[in-house]
Amino acid sequence: MFIKLDLESNEPIYIQLVHQIIAGIAKKDLEPGDRLPSVRSLASDIGINLHTVNKAYQLLKQDGLILIHRQKGVVVNPEGIPQADEAYRKQLNDSLHPLIAKSVCRGLDEEEFLHMCSRLFKEFYDRKEEEK
Amino acid sequence: MFIKLDLESNEPIYIQLVHQIIAGIAKKDLEPGDRLPSVRSLASDIGINLHTVNKAYQLLKQDGLILIHRQKGVVVNPEGIPQADEAYRKQLNDSLHPLIAKSVCRGLDEEEFLHMCSRLFKEFYDRKEEEK
Repeated sequence: MFIKLDLESNEPIYIQLVHQIIAGIAKKDLEPGDRLPSVRSLASDIGINLHTVNKAYQLLKQDGLILIHRQKGVVVNPEGIPQADEAYRKQLNDSLHPLIAKSVCRGLDEEEFLHMCSRLFKEFYDRKEEEK
Repeated sequence: MFIKLDLESNEPIYIQLVHQIIAGIAKKDLEPGDRLPSVRSLASDIGINLHTVNKAYQLLKQDGLILIHRQKGVVVNPEGIPQADEAYRKQLNDSLHPLIAKSVCRGLDEEEFLHMCSRLFKEFYDRKEEEK
């Protein structure tokens, strides 16, 4: 899996790392049980701080996306990713709320917004289809 | 306009403040030219730090949502909110990408995601209709 960080971005590196790994799982580049590099080796490979990688891994662990074993290392949750529950739906709703408020302010309408979402879903689904 | 902050939230207070003001503009509780409280008075009203309010106002100013005059104080951009441009569309796409990746991981499908978005748009549009 290819990690692409934008060091010029306003988005903190650990958040970029979390997003890239989640996208990797969504695209099935990373499957349940797959091993991820250790904190130390990922930090050294992409030339970032140990703590940055650790922070990203801890967030992914909290969300049940990865497991961190002292011996086996870091793996994508082999029991599969926890499915969306009420807490996840509330969190998603809270994340979408400001994006939609801002779009309404800026005159970007519902149709265009939904179209943008559909196109992004398609990006992941297409990748899943290719695998079959 | 009513500001409601969640001090227990993981979301920084200044971000919450930005979101509430954007939502106020989207719902037309705040219209172009409307005055907002000064940094000092808002900070004292809601019992938060001056710097927190200042950080929120600076972000809103950068986005062209408010103007900060030395004499006239803080106002919602009287020339109206800048309409969505290519830079805004790219930013929105970048914000939606991780939310959709995560939803794909968690098995929350496109239909439910779009439905959630539509419901949020409706929340703002309904408020706009009521005003007429």
